[in-house]
Amino acid sequence: MQRFEILALDGRTAARRGRLTTPHGVAETPAFMPVGTAGAVKTLDNRDLDELGAQLVLANTYHLYLRPGHEVVRDLGGLHGFAHRDKPYLTDSGGFQVFSLSDFRKITEEGVRFASHIDGSRHMFTPELSMQVQEALGADIIMAFDECIPYPAEDEYVRQSTERTWRWTRRCLDAKTRDDQALFGIVQGGMSEELRRWSAAQTTALDLAGYALGGLSVGESKPQMMRVVAFSAPLLPAEKPRYVMGVGHPEDILEMISYGIDMFDCVMPTRNARTGTLYTSTGRLNIRNAQYKTDPRPLDPACRCPTCAQYSRAYLRHLYLASEPSVLRLLTIHNLSFYFNMMEEARQAIANGAFFDYYAAFRVKGQ
Amino acid sequence: MQRFEILALDGRTAARRGRLTTPHGVAETPAFMPVGTAGAVKTLDNRDLDELGAQLVLANTYHLYLRPGHEVVRDLGGLHGFAHRDKPYLTDSGGFQVFSLSDFRKITEEGVRFASHIDGSRHMFTPELSMQVQEALGADIIMAFDECIPYPAEDEYVRQSTERTWRWTRRCLDAKTRDDQALFGIVQGGMSEELRRWSAAQTTALDLAGYALGGLSVGESKPQMMRVVAFSAPLLPAEKPRYVMGVGHPEDILEMISYGIDMFDCVMPTRNARTGTLYTSTGRLNIRNAQYKTDPRPLDPACRCPTCAQYSRAYLRHLYLASEPSVLRLLTIHNLSFYFNMMEEARQAIANGAFFDYYAAFRVKGQ
Repeated sequence: MQRFEILALDGRTAARRGRLTTPHGVAETPAFMPVGTAGAVKTLDNRDLDELGAQLVLANTYHLYLRPGHEVVRDLGGLHGFAHRDKPYLTDSGGFQVFSLSDFRKITEEGVRFASHIDGSRHMFTPELSMQVQEALGADIIMAFDECIPYPAEDEYVRQSTERTWRWTRRCLDAKTRDDQALFGIVQGGMSEELRRWSAAQTTALDLAGYALGGLSVGESKPQMMRVVAFSAPLLPAEKPRYVMGVGHPEDILEMISYGIDMFDCVMPTRNARTGTLYTSTGRLNIRNAQYKTDPRPLDPACRCPTCAQYSRAYLRHLYLASEPSVLRLLTIHNLSFYFNMMEEARQAIANGAFFDYYAAFRVKGQ
Repeated sequence: MQRFEILALDGRTAARRGRLTTPHGVAETPAFMPVGTAGAVKTLDNRDLDELGAQLVLANTYHLYLRPGHEVVRDLGGLHGFAHRDKPYLTDSGGFQVFSLSDFRKITEEGVRFASHIDGSRHMFTPELSMQVQEALGADIIMAFDECIPYPAEDEYVRQSTERTWRWTRRCLDAKTRDDQALFGIVQGGMSEELRRWSAAQTTALDLAGYALGGLSVGESKPQMMRVVAFSAPLLPAEKPRYVMGVGHPEDILEMISYGIDMFDCVMPTRNARTGTLYTSTGRLNIRNAQYKTDPRPLDPACRCPTCAQYSRAYLRHLYLASEPSVLRLLTIHNLSFYFNMMEEARQAIANGAFFDYYAAFRVKGQ
C-alpha cells in the first residue's frame, strides 16, 4: 500500500507540505497533475514530462476504456507499460466524462448507460466496471465512481445523487481487488453544506486512502466554489491526501492550498497553451497578438523552461500563425513549467511557514 | 566563403564522401536535408534536430517571404537567430513554390507574378528579389531563381524556359551582395540530354559554389529521372557539391549517390510520418494497421532512435488513432532517424569503397 506523509504545516494557513509514496515513485504535495487523457499529455512525450519534473499524471478511464480498450492497456503492462512511463498515474472513474455526454446517458441505481462519442456504440458504466477498468489500467491511485452533479440542480436531485454516489463508493470498495492501488473516495453534495457534511462523514467512514471534493468548477461562482472547499477541507481526515478535481486557475489552486488541499488536476495549462494563451510572471499573454511580431524576448524572461531558453515571442508567434505543429508542444512545455514552478514555490513557502505571503504576492501580480 | 572537400571516392561507383564547411558549421556529404518550410521542421524543435544529428536544414523562401516576412527574419538575426539554430541552412529560391501555384502565376522575362496562397495578395518574384529575400533570410547556401519545368512540356517551351533560367541565374549572380553565402546554380533542360548539356555548360561557366539538378521528380518515370541524373552528374564540376532537389525515396537517394550526387532534400520522411507511414530496416509499415493493435515491439527493433527506445507499435498506433498531436513528432523523429542513419551508412560505405554492396543490400530489403 501507499504512504502519505505530512512534511510541514504552514501554520498561518491550513496549507500542508506532504509526500505521497506510490509503487511508481513519489509525488510531492501540494501536487498539480497534468491531464493525459488518452495516456499521453497532449503534444508532449515522456522525456518532456521528465524534464518538467512531472510526477503524478492523470489519465481518463472513459477514453482508455473506449480506445484502445482497457484489456489492451492491461496486456501491455497497464498504463506504466503501455505508455512506457515508470512514474505515478491517477485515473479518474470515468464518471465525469460519461456525465458530460448529456444527450446520450441515462442514470439508474445500477450505473450509467451512455453512447460512445467515438462511434455511438452503447455502453454501461457501473461502480464495478469502473473498478475493473481502473484495475486493468493499473494506475497508482484510482477514483471511486461518482456522479458529478451539475449546477444549478434541484435540492432533491442533489440529495438523491449524493446518497447514490455514496452507495456507489461502497460498491467500488467491495469490487476492488488490487492491493497495490490506492482508492480515493469522492465527496459530493453540490453547494449544500449539510449534504457536503453528510457525504464527507459517510465517505470518510469507509477509511479510504484519500478523498476528493467533486462537483466543483461546474458553473457555480468562484465564491461559491471557494466556500465549499473552505468548509469541506476540514471535514476530510488530516492524515490523508485531499484532492479537488478539475481545478484550476493558478490563483484558485493557491487559495485551495491555503484551505489544506493537496492535489489538483486541470486541462487549463495544456489547453490554454494550444490556444496560444501563456502564463508568465507578469500576467497572461496571447502569442497571436500583433505586438509580438518582432519581439525578441522569451515568453517570460523570468522563466527557465526549455522554450524560454531557446525561442523568442516573435518566432513562436510566427510558428503559431503558420500552424506549425511544433509550437503547440513548445507552448505546452512553457505553461506546464509555469504551473510546476508555482507548485514548487508553494511547497517551499509552506515549508518556510510563508505560504500566505507567497499567495498574496502571487495575486498582486495578476495571475 | 565556404569550402567543399572530397574526403573519399567509392571507386566502383561515382559516389563521393565529402564535407561542406559553412559559416555555421559543417555538413557531411552525401547529405540529406530535412525540409523546414516555415523555419521549423514540422513537429520538431531544434533539440530534436540536434539529437538526430541534423546538419543542413532547408527552409522555403516563398513561405518566409509571405510570413512572417523576410525583413522580420532579418531583423531577428536571419534564420539562425530567428529560429535560434546555429547550424547550416539552405534556402530555395522561391521559384518552385511560385510555379506550383499554377492558377495564379504569370511568367515573363522579368520574373513571375503570383497571388499569395495565404491571403490572395499579389506579388512578383524576380531573380533580384529572390536574392534580396535570401540575403535577408541569411542561409549559408542560397539557390538561383529558376523555373522548375513541368512534365510533360513542349520541346520549345523547355528550350525557352531553360535559356531563361540561365539568364535569371546570371541576374542572381549580379544581384548577390553577401560574400558569406554560397550561391548554387540550377541546371534545367527537362528530359532533353541536349538541353541539359547546354544548361550545365552555361551554368557551370558562371563558376558558382555548387550546382543543382532541378526539374526532376515532377511526373516523369523513375527511369527517365535516373537517366537525366546519370548523364548530368558528370557534367557538373567534380570539385563542387552536386544537389538533386526534391528527391526522394531512400533507394532513389542511394542510386543518385552512386552517380556522384552529394545533397538531397525531400518532404517524404516528414510528410510520410504524419500520415503514419514509417521506414524500417525490413520495409515500410503503416502504424494505423490493425495488426499493430497489441504489438509490443518498437517500430523497428533495429532502430536506436528515441521513439524506438521508448514506445511500442501498440502505443503509437493508439496515439495515432486518438489524434494525439505528440505522435506526429514521435513518428517524424523515427523517419528522419532512418534517413540520417542511411546517409551515415552510405558515407561510411563510400569511405570503405563498399558503396555498391551497401546499395545492393539496401534494395534487397525492399525500401
